[in-house]
Amino acid sequence: MTDSSDVLARLAQVVESRKGADPETSYVARLLAKGPDAFLKKVGEEAAEVVMAAKDAEHGGPREKIVAEMADLWFHGLVALAYFGLTPADVLAELERREGLGGLAEKAARQDH
Amino acid sequence: MTDSSDVLARLAQVVESRKGADPETSYVARLLAKGPDAFLKKVGEEAAEVVMAAKDAEHGGPREKIVAEMADLWFHGLVALAYFGLTPADVLAELERREGLGGLAEKAARQDH
Amino acid sequence: MTDSSDVLARLAQVVESRKGADPETSYVARLLAKGPDAFLKKVGEEAAEVVMAAKDAEHGGPREKIVAEMADLWFHGLVALAYFGLTPADVLAELERREGLGGLAEKAARQDH
Amino acid sequence: MTDSSDVLARLAQVVESRKGADPETSYVARLLAKGPDAFLKKVGEEAAEVVMAAKDAEHGGPREKIVAEMADLWFHGLVALAYFGLTPADVLAELERREGLGGLAEKAARQDH
Repeated sequence: MTDSSDVLARLAQVVESRKGADPETSYVARLLAKGPDAFLKKVGEEAAEVVMAAKDAEHGGPREKIVAEMADLWFHGLVALAYFGLTPADVLAELERREGLGGLAEKAARQDH
Repeated sequence: MTDSSDVLARLAQVVESRKGADPETSYVARLLAKGPDAFLKKVGEEAAEVVMAAKDAEHGGPREKIVAEMADLWFHGLVALAYFGLTPADVLAELERREGLGGLAEKAARQDH
Repeated sequence: MTDSSDVLARLAQVVESRKGADPETSYVARLLAKGPDAFLKKVGEEAAEVVMAAKDAEHGGPREKIVAEMADLWFHGLVALAYFGLTPADVLAELERREGLGGLAEKAARQDH
Repeated sequence: MTDSSDVLARLAQVVESRKGADPETSYVARLLAKGPDAFLKKVGEEAAEVVMAAKDAEHGGPREKIVAEMADLWFHGLVALAYFGLTPADVLAELERREGLGGLAEKAARQDH
């Protein structure tokens, strides 16, 4: 299992470090240099691939494909966030806020006792 | 600071707990009861909304909308993962494996000294 | 036989006639009144539904669902075109121009003799 | 303006003729040979590009980009239809049936007199 270290935050730092880098040096540097349309069309494509992998799994195919395509989708999401000066922590904070997770987790913890 | 493994893992548990629940009791229970098409079309819709929010930001609009739409996209991704017995930890492990983050992080740490 | 220019052109006129109409009177009037985000997120959703229907067909499901979802996708495309003062004829002309269809059709016709 | 000849039907025949053709000979032959995932992910990508072009137009950009991206989206839709033995006429018939266009057109014609 993935430990408590922040994978998304570390990945976001790697993406961040590619800003302004020579587009020849990496895929992410190239996406960032090309601008929004380059990585946003990937968001659309990868969302379609998540859908295809899930449909294959629904019909008996391997679940591993869903994991791989979801990783692609999240990764290009990190590129979009970085381009606009945002971080996965912003998204996680929004998810936490929205779902009232603090309260839910506390309640769950209390039920353990 | 927000830790992605923890927030996503806790959210995933909340989603997991909605499996088999009365569809009337929550949005997630309803999505899971309806089956893949219900949440997969949301993945397509939310991906389009991420794209729209990013284009608005490109043209001077608020970046907060990107955060909100990305949260929606990730959230429906968690529902898809849960439906197929997968977890965000699976996706994070794949991202870690693929990017060789372990190595990258170690190298970055060594450069600090 | 159904003629694509005619059906699409007539549909486009119906959509056009909904511009500025009371949003309460029809679904299209409502989409047009709400503005781009309303129908563009439907484009994303319907594209996902085309993908899902095609994957179902790939796994033995009914092809009719592809037809229904493609109709939804094209229809929301017509709404987008109308909103921006464009018509299906513009898209058909672009397809014709791009594929050099005139020439291809002529060549095919000549091969018949 | 595009005349009454059926552009979509002619394009569909061109696509149909690429079935079973050497993948090296054309882009469409290649998509059809690779199977559904190849053209379905393009449907997702092109839908995202329609959304991006429309957002650019909303913010003052050229409408021509919408036409070009919609042409791409419809074209890959034709590839999907052909792969599953369907035609644009099937989609147009569904649109006509659904919208009761026959009736509407007749009524409009009667109002001319």
